[in-house]
Amino acid sequence: MSLIAVGTVAFDAIETPFGKIDKVVGGAATYITLAASYFVKTSSLISVVGDDFPSAFLNEMSHRGIAQEGLQIKAGEKSFFWSGKYHYDLNSRDTLITDLNVLADFKPVVPNSYLPCNYLMLGNLDPSVQLEVINQIPVRPRFVVLDTMNFWMDIALDKLKEVLQKVDVLTINDEEARQLAQEYSLVKAAAKIMAMGPKYLIIKKGEHGALLFDKDQVFFAPALPLEEVVDPTGAGDTFAGGFIGYLAHTGDLSFENMKRAVIIGSAMASFTCEAFGPERLMNLTTEEIDTRIQRFVDLVDFDILLIE
Amino acid sequence: MSLIAVGTVAFDAIETPFGKIDKVVGGAATYITLAASYFVKTSSLISVVGDDFPSAFLNEMSHRGIAQEGLQIKAGEKSFFWSGKYHYDLNSRDTLITDLNVLADFKPVVPNSYLPCNYLMLGNLDPSVQLEVINQIPVRPRFVVLDTMNFWMDIALDKLKEVLQKVDVLTINDEEARQLAQEYSLVKAAAKIMAMGPKYLIIKKGEHGALLFDKDQVFFAPALPLEEVVDPTGAGDTFAGGFIGYLAHTGDLSFENMKRAVIIGSAMASFTCEAFGPERLMNLTTEEIDTRIQRFVDLVDFDILLIE
Repeated sequence: MSLIAVGTVAFDAIETPFGKIDKVVGGAATYITLAASYFVKTSSLISVVGDDFPSAFLNEMSHRGIAQEGLQIKAGEKSFFWSGKYHYDLNSRDTLITDLNVLADFKPVVPNSYLPCNYLMLGNLDPSVQLEVINQIPVRPRFVVLDTMNFWMDIALDKLKEVLQKVDVLTINDEEARQLAQEYSLVKAAAKIMAMGPKYLIIKKGEHGALLFDKDQVFFAPALPLEEVVDPTGAGDTFAGGFIGYLAHTGDLSFENMKRAVIIGSAMASFTCEAFGPERLMNLTTEEIDTRIQRFVDLVDFDILLIE
Repeated sequence: MSLIAVGTVAFDAIETPFGKIDKVVGGAATYITLAASYFVKTSSLISVVGDDFPSAFLNEMSHRGIAQEGLQIKAGEKSFFWSGKYHYDLNSRDTLITDLNVLADFKPVVPNSYLPCNYLMLGNLDPSVQLEVINQIPVRPRFVVLDTMNFWMDIALDKLKEVLQKVDVLTINDEEARQLAQEYSLVKAAAKIMAMGPKYLIIKKGEHGALLFDKDQVFFAPALPLEEVVDPTGAGDTFAGGFIGYLAHTGDLSFENMKRAVIIGSAMASFTCEAFGPERLMNLTTEEIDTRIQRFVDLVDFDILLIE
């Protein structure tokens, strides 16, 4: 059940209508591996940071079973930095700064110690980098999940389509699904996107929940209405980490179990929204997670009699 | 179980990114009573039209058990006309034309034949008109549902707050809930709004589903991902009609049953989106409705094992 996650490990500066933080640890692979760590004892990180990245945080990830042979630490260079500002509608945001730094010439290396790989999570990155990782894994993993965004659809669509042919699941938001498929109806968009390669499509809708499609079925997972949403940054990555972590833990890739994994991912993402950065993912208890999952169960629970 | 519905009966002109119709029957009370007619044998309409309104349509409503003693037909005047254009995101729209016509000096009259009233649906209208209806009903109905919109929050907030004190359920969209409560978190907004009077709040989120709140609980009903969305006009009114119609039919006002009513309302609304105007509501079969409800059941159905 070896799980590899590739993606950024970085710093973020975030402004929401309700608060602001100048520098906090972020990055897709950070959220993915931390979320997955609640379901798998070990996972393997592929990423790059500068020597400005706090070793204390890397140690903490280590303690959570996140192997770092595939994490490159570039002496004298700076870590990737992203700064964004959310609209009052926390579902949308503007990017203010993207300092690629170490990411500019990132050549991912998959260490032999990570192989064989059964579960591969490709966090949001240049599709060329995602492809390099896939190509370094000699035996195709049992299950590959891809996250991407509109930016890569705009500037690297052909490469992205190449990656799409090699994955089992794609996770994107509703706007991106419509862009990628050139189709308004999400049902039609899903069919078109699955024809590009992935057997499953997950459409993430932030505070509106998530949809899981396969060829014949659709499942809707709600998002939990939260008392306080502090910062949604990393929620999508946390979702992906919880999703693939749960699947790796159970080893069951049926649609029924994938529905559970979507609920688990949503529950984990709801924690991430409660604080700036990955703080909430550092020390959750099993009880907290179970209580949160139960709230999802209660949220959509109804029994119905058909009408006469 | 006598059900009264007040609201517009009107003409609409609608443009969506996928089609256009110059004149179609519309109006809140039209959709409300048609949707409710699948659950209650009779209902009572309070509204006003000009003599340009097609009597064939009114006859059709009559055949569906919709009493019209409270429908004023103004000779030589024109029916209310609304024209709107939807954005590519069908969840938002611009109003192009609002010709009040007969609505400008509408004085609603509740006929004695409509009394006693057990279920009252106040469709979106000037809160003063809604209040006049409430005040003409000598014994408070068992259950009062209010629909309104941001327009009335902008220009008639005090009157709206007066109405809010007299109703059991308010239905509005998420943006309106945030505006009314001056609160971003929907959980906090719901608490503030329920403190204004209603025991229950339904937040309609269009293609993202609906939330039902009471003081202690929240329920999330999904919207069905549709293959073709032709025109969402009237979906909210259809939802309200299905909701109150089902409650009137069952007479059960428990939270559990209200959850069912929200699913029923959502199912009925999904039909309305499939055509311009109320066409789909004119001749649904029980089988079609049951099949649709079953799709909602399947859409959110999962069983979960808590994590060890």
